Amino acid sequence: MKLTILGCNSATPRINTNPTAQVLEICNHIFLIDCGEGTQVQLRKNKIKFSRIKHIFISHLHGDHYFGLVGLISTFRLLTREADLHIYAPKGLKEVITLHMKLSGSWTNYKLIFHELVSKKTEIIFEDDKVEVYTIPLDHRIYTNGFLFKEKEKERKLNICKVEDAKIDVAYYRKLKQGFDVENEEGKLIKNQDVTFSGSKPKSYAFCSDTAYFEDIIPIIKEVDVLYHESTFLEKNSKLALSTKHSTAKQAARIAKQAKVKTLILGHYSTRYDNVNDFKEEALEVFNNIELADDGKTFMI
Amino acid sequence: MKLTILGCNSATPRINTNPTAQVLEICNHIFLIDCGEGTQVQLRKNKIKFSRIKHIFISHLHGDHYFGLVGLISTFRLLTREADLHIYAPKGLKEVITLHMKLSGSWTNYKLIFHELVSKKTEIIFEDDKVEVYTIPLDHRIYTNGFLFKEKEKERKLNICKVEDAKIDVAYYRKLKQGFDVENEEGKLIKNQDVTFSGSKPKSYAFCSDTAYFEDIIPIIKEVDVLYHESTFLEKNSKLALSTKHSTAKQAARIAKQAKVKTLILGHYSTRYDNVNDFKEEALEVFNNIELADDGKTFMI
Repeated sequence: MKLTILGCNSATPRINTNPTAQVLEICNHIFLIDCGEGTQVQLRKNKIKFSRIKHIFISHLHGDHYFGLVGLISTFRLLTREADLHIYAPKGLKEVITLHMKLSGSWTNYKLIFHELVSKKTEIIFEDDKVEVYTIPLDHRIYTNGFLFKEKEKERKLNICKVEDAKIDVAYYRKLKQGFDVENEEGKLIKNQDVTFSGSKPKSYAFCSDTAYFEDIIPIIKEVDVLYHESTFLEKNSKLALSTKHSTAKQAARIAKQAKVKTLILGHYSTRYDNVNDFKEEALEVFNNIELADDGKTFMI
Repeated sequence: MKLTILGCNSATPRINTNPTAQVLEICNHIFLIDCGEGTQVQLRKNKIKFSRIKHIFISHLHGDHYFGLVGLISTFRLLTREADLHIYAPKGLKEVITLHMKLSGSWTNYKLIFHELVSKKTEIIFEDDKVEVYTIPLDHRIYTNGFLFKEKEKERKLNICKVEDAKIDVAYYRKLKQGFDVENEEGKLIKNQDVTFSGSKPKSYAFCSDTAYFEDIIPIIKEVDVLYHESTFLEKNSKLALSTKHSTAKQAARIAKQAKVKTLILGHYSTRYDNVNDFKEEALEVFNNIELADDGKTFMI
């Protein structure tokens, strides 16, 4: 899994900083998470092929998380895209995108499929044979979801010496990888665990932005490999965090600690602060493994 | 008058180029003309004070001319703007901006006044004591207006020696500047033209994008000082210009020549061409005074 931060600043625009957008490469998918203004150019800068994006996840309908989406949808049309595009977003997005299209006198030449979210409980919104995506209901000023991306249990690996010693026909290797016991050439039942290793551990990534400090998310993100949690403010502005339903760096760290995640990435910094290292310092008082998001930075998971 | 090009490329996004947006400084106004995605950052880069923008003119509702507007409107709110904001744009813009605001659960803390345009004939849309702004109906795939910005006739200047010789009371100087004849201290009528010079010639700027070759605009833009006319294509793609209702550089030059403008600025280049100088070369075959728009470039008028 590879995470690329396209933008990790909050709403006020500045030169050389971008509002929220991320790309998650997972099991041959390119998932786009949020799409603030300027995301198209950030995709170009980070050499992400537009045509490989087939699923876009929008957390909420504040502008710094989706104002770049209508431009991206239009660009896909200019690039004569044909593949379906799935958009997972709060109810309302379809209406506003449709209105933009109507005003421009055009529609997409590809299929645009909206999956409008309304539930306040976690739910699975995407699944194939390798990946599952769940919503993480957050606590913000408007209806907001984070997203949990989970690889499925991976196939077991053959212990090829033992498999050959046990005289198992090649035709059964697929079954072995899937975890089944099989009969060998002599009709004897061979236990799966005697001839296979467990597959590599499935990885998981949780994206949580924007949100107040919200312990309800802990069971959902329990023990994820990487958690991106917004940290708009430092502790000195904790009252502002409370009133605007954002988090401080320390609160993000508290969530990470309770959920026993492996790594916490901080982001969505308010532009009022000059030094983002202050976020890390405050968070380190609570939790050890802290990374700072930065536009263009990548994380291997 | 000072024109700053914030963006002059057509729709397909590229690194370091921007879709259409311009700032015209005229008689103490800062007029924003079109507002493609990323205009906020371009305003910052070009050190234009956000608070001084009180009038925004939108040519048409194709994304590369207005997708940056909703973000700018939101930013004005974050910056606790209080001054009214006037937006002159085709009918429909108010509906889509209103819907965005509704979805975000917020509204502006300043007065947002939409002047929705529907007329297919030129009309005056802004006027104060020094400036007039007219629409220039264009020929594009959807309803589109260019804009003509005209300084009003300026006050006459006093020929101070002659005014003193003629024994005119200081109280009458204002009337003289406004072009009236006045009585001197001896009760004799003094002709205005005997004691004043004509004021400096009012300047004018016409913005025409997007449009096919369209001779109907010639009477409206007659003899303007500067004409910005789109030139999306070169002659070798003239068929594409015709079918998409855009212009070639040569067609822009033909309009400039017939309208007897002083200077023609070309822009809205398709990203298919590597060398923008080709636009100038083709236009020079028809018209002499050609400039090429470029992001961040300024023109004194």
